[in-house]
Amino acid sequence: MKLSQKVQDMQFSPIRKFNAYAIEAKAKGKKVYHLNIGQPDIKTPKAFMDAIKGFDSEVLAYAESGGLVQLQDAIANYFKRFDMDIQRQDVLITNGGSEALNMIYTCILDYGDEVLVPEPFYTNYQTFISAAGGKIVPITTQAEEGYQYAYGDRIEKAITEKTKAISLVNPGNPTGTILSREEMRVIADVAKKHDLWIIADEVYREFAYDGREMTSFGQLEDIKERVIIVDSVSKRFSACGARIGCIVSKNQELMSNALKLAQGRLCCPTLDMIGATALYELEPSYFNEVRVEYEGRRDAAYEEIMKIPGVVCHKPGGAFYIMVKLPVESSEDFLVWLLTEFEDQGETVMYAPIQGFYGTAGLGRDELRIAYVLNKEDLVRGVELIRLGLEKYKALGYK
Amino acid sequence: MKLSQKVQDMQFSPIRKFNAYAIEAKAKGKKVYHLNIGQPDIKTPKAFMDAIKGFDSEVLAYAESGGLVQLQDAIANYFKRFDMDIQRQDVLITNGGSEALNMIYTCILDYGDEVLVPEPFYTNYQTFISAAGGKIVPITTQAEEGYQYAYGDRIEKAITEKTKAISLVNPGNPTGTILSREEMRVIADVAKKHDLWIIADEVYREFAYDGREMTSFGQLEDIKERVIIVDSVSKRFSACGARIGCIVSKNQELMSNALKLAQGRLCCPTLDMIGATALYELEPSYFNEVRVEYEGRRDAAYEEIMKIPGVVCHKPGGAFYIMVKLPVESSEDFLVWLLTEFEDQGETVMYAPIQGFYGTAGLGRDELRIAYVLNKEDLVRGVELIRLGLEKYKALGYK
Repeated sequence: MKLSQKVQDMQFSPIRKFNAYAIEAKAKGKKVYHLNIGQPDIKTPKAFMDAIKGFDSEVLAYAESGGLVQLQDAIANYFKRFDMDIQRQDVLITNGGSEALNMIYTCILDYGDEVLVPEPFYTNYQTFISAAGGKIVPITTQAEEGYQYAYGDRIEKAITEKTKAISLVNPGNPTGTILSREEMRVIADVAKKHDLWIIADEVYREFAYDGREMTSFGQLEDIKERVIIVDSVSKRFSACGARIGCIVSKNQELMSNALKLAQGRLCCPTLDMIGATALYELEPSYFNEVRVEYEGRRDAAYEEIMKIPGVVCHKPGGAFYIMVKLPVESSEDFLVWLLTEFEDQGETVMYAPIQGFYGTAGLGRDELRIAYVLNKEDLVRGVELIRLGLEKYKALGYK
Repeated sequence: MKLSQKVQDMQFSPIRKFNAYAIEAKAKGKKVYHLNIGQPDIKTPKAFMDAIKGFDSEVLAYAESGGLVQLQDAIANYFKRFDMDIQRQDVLITNGGSEALNMIYTCILDYGDEVLVPEPFYTNYQTFISAAGGKIVPITTQAEEGYQYAYGDRIEKAITEKTKAISLVNPGNPTGTILSREEMRVIADVAKKHDLWIIADEVYREFAYDGREMTSFGQLEDIKERVIIVDSVSKRFSACGARIGCIVSKNQELMSNALKLAQGRLCCPTLDMIGATALYELEPSYFNEVRVEYEGRRDAAYEEIMKIPGVVCHKPGGAFYIMVKLPVESSEDFLVWLLTEFEDQGETVMYAPIQGFYGTAGLGRDELRIAYVLNKEDLVRGVELIRLGLEKYKALGYK
C-alpha cells in the first residue's frame, strides 16, 4: 500500500508553506501585509453573478464536455481583438488554467519526456508535468538581466531527443517579464527548428504596461499548428474562484485528443461557465481602468523597493509580480525572522520566497516575489517593512 | 511535435460516439427515447441555488485548496449517518468524483502499475488510470451471474507484483450490482492479504433498493487506512453540473499527498462549493422520495425488459442502471440500425452499447446499458421500442 514515486517527489506549494508563521504572527496580534499571494483585490464584474442568478433550469445538468457553446463562442470572439481566427472548435473549456495545463501535458508527454521552462517558474508547472510523467528542464534566467529568456542559443543548449515543448508564461509569473514580438519570433524559430510544441500561458495578456502591445503566440501564422494557448478568467476578470479557463489551439489533432480527457471528467461547472460567458462579453474598455490601477501599483512598489540598499530589481513589463533580489543568504530564513521576530509598530510583512520556483538546486536563495495586488498604501507599507526589517536583520549580524 | 502515446491509446466516450446517429434520426423527425445517459431528471434541490444567490462578496476569490471548510464539515457530518468517524482533514473537495479518481490514481500509480477493476466498468476509469501511467486489469463478470465480482479466488488470480489497488463502484455503474456486507468483507480480506488500496466509488450510496442497507467501505474498521472513498453531489442530489465531489480517507499520508495535487490546481469553484454545502446539509429524509421513485422506475424497466424473448437480465440492487444481454451478435450494430432504419409510430430508442465498458477484447458485444433516469412512461416505451425493434431486426434476417 504505497504512494506513487511521482506524487512523493512533488513539493507542497512553496508559497503556502510559510502560512503557519503568518497565522502565529497574527495570533500574537501583529498585522501582516500579504505581498505573497496572487489574489487580486479588484472587484469581480457584476455581470458574472447577474448571469448566474438568471439560471432557471430545474435540473443542474451536465454540460458539454468541451464547454458551453456560448462560452466557446464568446472566447473565440474575444480573440478577434488580437486578429486571431479562433473558431468554436479551437476552444476547449477547462477547470481554470490549471486543468488546461494538466490536460496539455497529459496530451504531449510520455514517461521521461522533457519540457523546457524558463526558471524561476510558476511552481505548479512542476506538479502538472510530474503528474504527466515528464520532467522540467529549466532555462535559467538572471535577476541582473531582468529574467529574460528569449536567447536562441541558451534555449537550444537545453534541447535533447526527449524535449517535447517549450512552456512559458507571457506576461510572466513570477518574473513579470514580457516578451517583445522579436523575442516571440526567436522562440518560434527554435520551436520550428526542433519540432517542439509552444505552450503559451497567456492569462495575464491584458496586464502589459508602459504602452506595450498585448500579444499572443497565436498571432504567429507560421507556427499556428504548434501553439497551445492557456487562458483563464481568474486574473483577467478578477474571478479566481470561478475556476474557468480554456485551451485554445488550431491543432485539431491536439484538440481532439484533449477532448478525450475532457470527456473523462464529463464537464466544467455549468453556472461558472454561464458567468464566464458574461465576462468574456465585457467591452475591451473594461481593462483600461484595471491596467492603469496595476501599472500605478507596480510603479509605487518598484519605487519603494529601490530604496532598499543592495537590492537588485528590474521593473517588470507585465502581469502583477515583481522579483526582488536581496542582500541576504536566504530569503526563506529572512521571511521566518520577519514573521516571528520582527515588527514595526505592531506590523510585519509576508512575501513569497522564490527558491521553490527554481528547478536548479541552490538558485534563487536570495530572491523573493511580491504580488502587487493590494492597494498602493498597503503595498508601499509592506515593502517598507521589508526594508526596515532588513536593516534590523543586518544590524543583528544575520547574513 | 507528437502527442503522447497514452492519450492516443485512450478512447473517446463510447456512450457519446453514437450521438451523431441520434442527431440524424431527430433531424428526420423521429422521436428518440434516450436510455443511454446517466443524467437524472430529478429536480436539483432549491437549497443549492438559494445558497449561491446569497453570495455577496465583491471579489470571487480563490478558496482553500482542500475545499471550503464548511463543505468539508458538512460532508464529515453526513458520514456520521453511516457511523463513520470522518473529520474535516479526512475530506478533500474535488471537481466532481472525476477529479477525485484522477487524483487518487496519480497518488498511487507509477508507470506500468496495475489496478484491478471489475468489468464491465465505467469507461472513464480507463482514461484516469491511463493518464496516471497505469493500466486496468479487469475482473471479468457475467450477465448470468448478475455481474457479481466478490469472489476471492477470481480476484487473487489477477493480482501481480504490479497490482496497487482494487477499484470498484458500489452500487455499480454500469451494472447496478450492489455488494452485501459479506462481499465487502471478501474484498477487504483480499486487499489486506496483498496489501492493496481499496478505491470505493460510492456516489450511488443512497440508491440501494428492496430495503438493502446503505453501506460504505469506510465502515470496516480494520481496513480504514487502505480505503479511499470517492463521493459526489452529481447523482446523490441531482446536481451533475455543479462538479463537486470529494476524496474521503483516514489515511493521512494519502490525504497529505493528494493535497499537493489540489494545491497544484489551486481550488474548486467557490460558488458550487457553497451550493454543495447546502445539499449535504439536507435532511436524510430527502432521499426517501428519490429512492422510491428510482426503485419504481427500475421495477417498471425490468418488467418491460423481461418481455424481450431471449433476454438475459438480472434485477440490479442499486444505482440507476440495468444491464441487458440481447440475442444479437452486436448491440452496437443493432443500435445503429435502430437509429437509422427502424421506427414505430415515428419513434425509436437509444441505449449505451457496453463493449467499450469491457477491458477484455471481444466481451460484451451482445450487452447494453439502460439508465432509468426518465419517467416511467418514457422508460417503458423506450424498452418496448427495443423489443419491437428486435422483432423486426430478427425478421429481416439480422443476427
